[in-house]
Amino acid sequence: MTAPRRAPGPAALAWEGGPDGCLLLLDQRRLPAEEHVLAVADVATLCEAIRSLAVRGAPALGVAAGYGAVLAARGAEGDAGLAAGLATLRAARPTAVNLFTMLDRQAAVARSALAEGRPWPALAERLLDEARRIHDEDRALCAAIGRHGAALLEDGMRVLTHCNTGRLATGGIGTALGVVLTATADGKRLRVYADETRPLLQGARLTMYELAEAGVDGVLLGDSAAAGLILSGGVDVVLVGADRIARNGDTANKVGTLALALAAGRAGVPFYVAAPTTSFDPALATGAGIPIEERSPDEVLDPLRPGLVPPGTEAWNPAFDVTPGDLVTGFVTERGVFRDPGAAGIKAPAGPRR
Amino acid sequence: MTAPRRAPGPAALAWEGGPDGCLLLLDQRRLPAEEHVLAVADVATLCEAIRSLAVRGAPALGVAAGYGAVLAARGAEGDAGLAAGLATLRAARPTAVNLFTMLDRQAAVARSALAEGRPWPALAERLLDEARRIHDEDRALCAAIGRHGAALLEDGMRVLTHCNTGRLATGGIGTALGVVLTATADGKRLRVYADETRPLLQGARLTMYELAEAGVDGVLLGDSAAAGLILSGGVDVVLVGADRIARNGDTANKVGTLALALAAGRAGVPFYVAAPTTSFDPALATGAGIPIEERSPDEVLDPLRPGLVPPGTEAWNPAFDVTPGDLVTGFVTERGVFRDPGAAGIKAPAGPRR
Repeated sequence: MTAPRRAPGPAALAWEGGPDGCLLLLDQRRLPAEEHVLAVADVATLCEAIRSLAVRGAPALGVAAGYGAVLAARGAEGDAGLAAGLATLRAARPTAVNLFTMLDRQAAVARSALAEGRPWPALAERLLDEARRIHDEDRALCAAIGRHGAALLEDGMRVLTHCNTGRLATGGIGTALGVVLTATADGKRLRVYADETRPLLQGARLTMYELAEAGVDGVLLGDSAAAGLILSGGVDVVLVGADRIARNGDTANKVGTLALALAAGRAGVPFYVAAPTTSFDPALATGAGIPIEERSPDEVLDPLRPGLVPPGTEAWNPAFDVTPGDLVTGFVTERGVFRDPGAAGIKAPAGPRR
Repeated sequence: MTAPRRAPGPAALAWEGGPDGCLLLLDQRRLPAEEHVLAVADVATLCEAIRSLAVRGAPALGVAAGYGAVLAARGAEGDAGLAAGLATLRAARPTAVNLFTMLDRQAAVARSALAEGRPWPALAERLLDEARRIHDEDRALCAAIGRHGAALLEDGMRVLTHCNTGRLATGGIGTALGVVLTATADGKRLRVYADETRPLLQGARLTMYELAEAGVDGVLLGDSAAAGLILSGGVDVVLVGADRIARNGDTANKVGTLALALAAGRAGVPFYVAAPTTSFDPALATGAGIPIEERSPDEVLDPLRPGLVPPGTEAWNPAFDVTPGDLVTGFVTERGVFRDPGAAGIKAPAGPRR
């Protein structure tokens, strides 16, 4: 295994204490310059941390939602208060399905606890147990994805990735980046090209930070350089994560993923989406149903002001795009690598469709 | 015609005075914050201006090369000195063919003048006449491209463009952006999406500046947002420029162009390359022969330092990519719109191949 270049920083998410404790978040807005840990003790603060991307990445949002339910129960005055807290968390960001799935899971836990007549603090304890279970499960999902994905990689391969999909984006070692780290731990030497991922530079700031932590050979490139690299034969495999995957394989992921898939398709380079089955949305037949978050134009414009754009410039800032399922070579899940979400066990639910 | 939002800034290129005058360049490194004009009086200064992108854009480089020959003749001591000056200019940047074409044209003028026994200042006068002719021709090429291209655009269309292809990139009104300006002057109201064009932000800095000058409705977006915009039906036509086009239509243009062509191809959205026939390289059968400039990693990294990348981050920074000719719906040239460079009159030369 390659020697790590530096000691690992604080965990992306950790719960400190019992049901009256707090959620510790490594503030990803300040990385890599500063390893600042936020102590989050209420729903409003967690929502703001999610909205402003102090914590981000679909699986990590699922884990945060699990712990967020504890905060909601604690602030709650009866059922209505708890439901309001969960609803507030649900409205924080629209695209990653993990947030909703885990809030639904905690809501079911709360219903069952309340049906048994358990008031606070027993309810908060039950929710904290479940949140820890969600976190542990995500760790195990990442490890299994890493193992299945690492089998696809050979020593010396050049891997292209986008945004950040490592330990900062999940409750474990990551999805796409977890695959890279697992292969590296197996002794395979990889060269990882990381798109900088404008506007918020998760590739430059977070993926390069994680690659340095792990001692993996990393190269940063502008997002628009990736397609040329792929078509000129500079990439052996493209590995990305996902925020939500429809039943036909249409995949919402960080804006810019689609162009990589198109280039890989043209070049005949494998394009893999690494994601736990918790990031699949069985209720959606196609990607057309995935809500795409549009974030503030200021995220594009602020780094360009003053001086790099004319005053009054208008900007458009979608956070995600949707890659058609036919461009995905395979989904690397905890259950194995599948061409088709159906084969990974993702089926339409029997109930009413969203 | 839409009212201009602001008075136009200084010309991108202008020659001041006679053969002992100087080349005035609007310094594009400082736009839009500052409209600073450089007075360039020798070959070394012009080379540095070209290398550092104070002047850029394939047609503008051709015009600059024309005037650069005057500077070379002036500094020259005999034939060898002039040849050395032209060779220095030739080495300034490798991709745009216009630089080489116009240096060759001036070298032929110089040979013929020298064969007639004309020393300085008569030689410099001949070269200045030819440089002015090159500049006038480029103005006419842009106007003709604008007319042919404008016929493709309808009122209300949403146009996506990349980098900068307007008056700053040419000796006239521009290529792709010249088409937009001509259609606007014809009374068509367009909405122009401009990719920011990392790393040097020619879209954000220069295209938004030119759109504001002309009163055209412009929207800035991150480079990686473009493919999603195209596939979601938000774009009616993609219009880009070119730095060099091979006989089979393979087109080198600013890095990021390829991804737009791939997305447009997938979505069935027309993808036009607007370029004068002077940007075609008849000696090259395919784009594989086009040298792609790799620029300093610092262009990617400097805006991210300190704080936005870990110390020691490695980066890769190609300035161009090559779009396969089959992805080009049509070449908008001064001779009309053609599917195939051969139809535009671009044929393999009879002499030895480059």
